[in-house]
Amino acid sequence: MKPFILTLSCPDQPGIVAAVSTVLAAQNLNILESQQYSAPETGQYFMRIGFEGDTTQAAIEQHLADTAKKFDMRLHVGDATARPRVLILLSKFDHCLIDLIYRQQVGSLNMDIAAIASNHEVGRHWAEDAGLAYHTLGGRAAKQDNEAKLESLIESENIDLVILARYMQVLTPEFVTRHSGRIINIHHSFLPSFKGAEPYSQAHQRGVKIIGATAHFVTADLDEGPIITQGVEPVRHDMDVASFIDVGRDTERRTLARAVRLLTERRVFLNGNKTVVFE
Amino acid sequence: MKPFILTLSCPDQPGIVAAVSTVLAAQNLNILESQQYSAPETGQYFMRIGFEGDTTQAAIEQHLADTAKKFDMRLHVGDATARPRVLILLSKFDHCLIDLIYRQQVGSLNMDIAAIASNHEVGRHWAEDAGLAYHTLGGRAAKQDNEAKLESLIESENIDLVILARYMQVLTPEFVTRHSGRIINIHHSFLPSFKGAEPYSQAHQRGVKIIGATAHFVTADLDEGPIITQGVEPVRHDMDVASFIDVGRDTERRTLARAVRLLTERRVFLNGNKTVVFE
Amino acid sequence: MKPFILTLSCPDQPGIVAAVSTVLAAQNLNILESQQYSAPETGQYFMRIGFEGDTTQAAIEQHLADTAKKFDMRLHVGDATARPRVLILLSKFDHCLIDLIYRQQVGSLNMDIAAIASNHEVGRHWAEDAGLAYHTLGGRAAKQDNEAKLESLIESENIDLVILARYMQVLTPEFVTRHSGRIINIHHSFLPSFKGAEPYSQAHQRGVKIIGATAHFVTADLDEGPIITQGVEPVRHDMDVASFIDVGRDTERRTLARAVRLLTERRVFLNGNKTVVFE
Amino acid sequence: MKPFILTLSCPDQPGIVAAVSTVLAAQNLNILESQQYSAPETGQYFMRIGFEGDTTQAAIEQHLADTAKKFDMRLHVGDATARPRVLILLSKFDHCLIDLIYRQQVGSLNMDIAAIASNHEVGRHWAEDAGLAYHTLGGRAAKQDNEAKLESLIESENIDLVILARYMQVLTPEFVTRHSGRIINIHHSFLPSFKGAEPYSQAHQRGVKIIGATAHFVTADLDEGPIITQGVEPVRHDMDVASFIDVGRDTERRTLARAVRLLTERRVFLNGNKTVVFE
Repeated sequence: MKPFILTLSCPDQPGIVAAVSTVLAAQNLNILESQQYSAPETGQYFMRIGFEGDTTQAAIEQHLADTAKKFDMRLHVGDATARPRVLILLSKFDHCLIDLIYRQQVGSLNMDIAAIASNHEVGRHWAEDAGLAYHTLGGRAAKQDNEAKLESLIESENIDLVILARYMQVLTPEFVTRHSGRIINIHHSFLPSFKGAEPYSQAHQRGVKIIGATAHFVTADLDEGPIITQGVEPVRHDMDVASFIDVGRDTERRTLARAVRLLTERRVFLNGNKTVVFE
Repeated sequence: MKPFILTLSCPDQPGIVAAVSTVLAAQNLNILESQQYSAPETGQYFMRIGFEGDTTQAAIEQHLADTAKKFDMRLHVGDATARPRVLILLSKFDHCLIDLIYRQQVGSLNMDIAAIASNHEVGRHWAEDAGLAYHTLGGRAAKQDNEAKLESLIESENIDLVILARYMQVLTPEFVTRHSGRIINIHHSFLPSFKGAEPYSQAHQRGVKIIGATAHFVTADLDEGPIITQGVEPVRHDMDVASFIDVGRDTERRTLARAVRLLTERRVFLNGNKTVVFE
Repeated sequence: MKPFILTLSCPDQPGIVAAVSTVLAAQNLNILESQQYSAPETGQYFMRIGFEGDTTQAAIEQHLADTAKKFDMRLHVGDATARPRVLILLSKFDHCLIDLIYRQQVGSLNMDIAAIASNHEVGRHWAEDAGLAYHTLGGRAAKQDNEAKLESLIESENIDLVILARYMQVLTPEFVTRHSGRIINIHHSFLPSFKGAEPYSQAHQRGVKIIGATAHFVTADLDEGPIITQGVEPVRHDMDVASFIDVGRDTERRTLARAVRLLTERRVFLNGNKTVVFE
Repeated sequence: MKPFILTLSCPDQPGIVAAVSTVLAAQNLNILESQQYSAPETGQYFMRIGFEGDTTQAAIEQHLADTAKKFDMRLHVGDATARPRVLILLSKFDHCLIDLIYRQQVGSLNMDIAAIASNHEVGRHWAEDAGLAYHTLGGRAAKQDNEAKLESLIESENIDLVILARYMQVLTPEFVTRHSGRIINIHHSFLPSFKGAEPYSQAHQRGVKIIGATAHFVTADLDEGPIITQGVEPVRHDMDVASFIDVGRDTERRTLARAVRLLTERRVFLNGNKTVVFE
C-alpha cells in the first residue's frame, strides 16, 4: 500500500468529486483525507486528495485521463513521500537558509535541496557543510547572466520549487512568468505594509506594535504576489531597528518554513491573485 | 439553489467518497467544499460536504439511504442555513451568556437560543432584554429536579445543543450519557492543567506565564471530555488572581464562541476520546 | 494607605529618578512598581510610578513642585483608583460600545462612561439599559454643530478620554489638536495596511492570511496617529468579506479594550509620532 | 559613557529607589530604563536599572555598599555588554543547541557558550563546527561522575548559566540546590500539563488542540521549578505524535531562546516558587 497525493483545479460544475472518486474506488484506492473548495470569485474548483493503494502514479494518471479531459482539469498525481527538488536563492542573510537545511536534515521538511545560489558568500559554509552545491551569482549588473545560470540549474536539476530565502535582487518579469507558481519569496514585513527594501526601518519609524513576515508567490508585480502564509510577533517601544531585525529573523524563518511545508505537501493552489490553502 | 451540509462517519473502507458523491452528482447537486479524514487510531472515516442544489433534505436522505446502510454510516443532511436550537446553562458568571446572545443577535453565530437556565439570577436581565426565556434551577441538593427540568426543556424546545457557559454544577453520568455529543462546556483552564473548581487560583499559585480556556464535550468523566478547541493568553508576574480572572473572561468567551461556531457549522466529530475538527 | 500613580515626562538628564524618589521617600511613600525609559530619538525621559502612602494628591504635587520645575517635567499624580471620565463616540457598529459598557460594569475597566454620542441610533438601547446618556449627532453636513456639541460635553462632563469606538466621521484638525493625547480611535485594520473606509474589503481583495485592528491616538493626519496597541487574527481562503468583518469585530473590541485599559492605568505616553507603553 | 545593568532584590520598605538612585545621581550616572516591582506574596522588592556613565563596576558597587547593607539587598552591577558564560547540556536532540549556537553567532543572544556536555554524540558536529568544546558524559549509571565533571567545568570555565537544552537526565538535588537560580531547563510541554518523559505522546493521547513548551528554573522538584516563560502552538486532529514533536521543536527552541535572552539581559528574578520577569 503506497500513499499518493492528488491535486486538481478546474472550472466548477457538478460531478467532479463523483467522477474522480469513482475512478479511485474502481482501482480499489482508499481515500485517507481530502479537502475541496469552490471559489466563488473565479469559478474554479480545487481538490486535494490523499489516498493509498497498490498501484503506480502512471496507472492512476492513465485511469483519470478521460475525466481530466472532460472537466478540463489541471491535475497532478504524486507519490506522497516524493521529495520536491528545491533551489534556494539568498543574498546577505543566512538564517532562512540554515533553517531550511536543518529542517530537511531532521525530516521536518520533505524536500531535496538540489542547489543553492547566491550573490554573497555568507551561506557557502552552511551549504558545503551539508554537502549541498553552492553556486555564485553576480551582482545587479549581471542580472541576465544570473538568470541564465538559474535557468540552467532549474533544468539540469529538475527543480520543482525556487525559494527566495532573503534574495534581495529583483527577477525579470520574463523569468518570473516562465516559472509562475513555482517561485516563492519571504518578505520581511506583514504585507501589504512596508513593501520594498527596508521594511524593519519603516516599521520602526511608524511605531507599530506588531511586526510580521509574508511568504508569497513571486509575480512580475513586486511584493504583490499571491500570499501563502503570514506570521507576526509583538514588538515594544524600547526596541531599536536591530531588535526588530532580530525578532524578524525568527518570524521570517518560521513563516517561510510553514509555506515550504504547505507547498511540499501540495496544499497550496493559485486562485487568481490569491491562494487556496488546505491546511 | 439551496445550500446543504452533509456530515457522516463510518468504518473506513474504499469507495465511501465515490458512493456518496455519485449519489449527489446524480441529483445534480454541486459540491462547494468538503473535508474528509480517516482516523488511524479508531479506523473511522469522517466526511463533511457543503453542497447546493434544487432539492430537499428528505429527498437527499432518501437517495442516500442505501449507501448509508451499506457503509454503516452515521449520516446527517441538513439545510446549511438551519439554526440549531440551543439551551444555555450558567451559574454566577454571565460573560459567556452575554457574548453568545450578542453573537446570535448580530448573526455571528447561526443559532437559536431556545432557552436559558441557571441556579443564579445574574443572567436574567440579559435574557429578558433579548426576549429569551430564563428558567430557574435549584442548588446542588436539587440535582434530580434540575435534570428533570432540563430534560423537559430539551424535549419541549427540541434542543440540539446544550452549552454549559460557566455552569458550575456537575451533571449526573446518566444525563451526560443520554445526551452524549450534544453537551459542551467551557472550562476556565488550559486542560489538562488545573482541573476542578478554581483553576485561576491554581494557575496563579503555580506561576504560569500563559493561561487558557478549553471548550470540550461533557462526559461522565469530569474535565476529561473530548476537547473541541482551546485558547490562551499571556499573563505577567504583577497580575493577581482577579487579573487572571479578568483576562480569562475574554479567553473563555472567545474560545466558547469558536466551539459553538464549529458545532453550528457541523465541523466537529467525536472520534473516541478526541475530536476531528474540520476548520 | 492609599495607592497613587505618578507619571512624568521630561528632557532626559541625570538625577531625575533620584530627585523624584527622594521626595517620595521623604514623605514616607512606598514605591510598589515603576517603569522608566529614556527615548534616544526624542531625548525624552518617561516614568510611571505606583506608590502608596498616607497622603493626598495635592500634598504630593506640592512636594514635587520644585523638582517638576527644575527638570521641566510634565507631571501628573493621581489616585490609582480614580476612574477617568470617558466619552464614547460611535456610528453604525455597536460591538465596541457594548464591550466597553460591559467591561466597566464588571470592573474590568476602571472608568466612568460619562456620555455616549452618535450619528446613529444603534447604540441607544445599550446605553439606556446601562443608565448612560446617549447624545445624538448629525451627519457629515453637521460637522460644525457636532463638534460644538462634543466640546460642550467634554467641558460639562469633565471628560478625560474620548474613545472613537467605530465612529466613522472625520474630526476637524482643530478639534483633534485641541484634545491631543486625549482622543483614541480603533481602526479596523493592521495599520499601516488598509487605511481608509473599507479595510476588510481591501484585505479580502489582497488575499491576506491575517487581519488586524489598531488602537491609536487621533491626530490631524488620518490613520497616521501614534499607535497604542494592535491585535491580529488568522483568516482563511474560504472566508468572505462578511466573515472578515465578523472575525474583525472580536479583534477590534479586544484591541480597543486593551488600549483603554493601558490608558486608564496611565501606561501610555506620547513620544513624537510614537508611543511609549509600560505594560 | 559605558552602559551598566543593576539588579537587586530586598525586603520591601520605603526609600529603596531614593537610596539607590541618589547614589547613582551623585556619580553622575544616567538612568536609561528601569523596572521595579513589590511582590505582595513574599514582601520582596525587585529592581532592574539600565544606566550609563563614565565609571567602573567596582566603583559603583563600592558607592552602593552601604545602601546594600542597610536595605539587606542582594545586589548585582554588571557591564551591560558583558557576555554571561554558558554551559549547555543536551542528550539526543540537537535543535535547541543548534539554535543557541546560531543566535550567539549572529549576535542575537549576548552570551559566550563556554562549553557543551552531553551523553550523546548528536551535537558534537555542531559544536566543533562552531569551535566549541564538546564534553562527553556517561549514562544514568554514571550520574556521580557526570556531576563531578559538570562541577569541574562550571568552576574552570566560570559558568554563569547552565542550560538544559533537552538534557534528559535528572540532576541530583544536591547539584541543583548548589546552583540554584543558575540552571534552567526547557520542558517540552505546557507545564503543569504533561510532566515527565513523553509529553508529546501524552498530549496526543489527550487530544489537546494546543501544545507548548516551558522554560523554567531547575529545582530538586522535577518539572516544578519556577517558570520563566512559556510558548504555545496550535495542533490539529490529523497530526500524529511525530508531527507534534516536529511542531514542538520550533516552540521549544523559541521558548528557550526567549528565556536565555531574558536571563542574559538580567530580567528574571526568583520570587519564591515563581519568577518576576521585567520584559
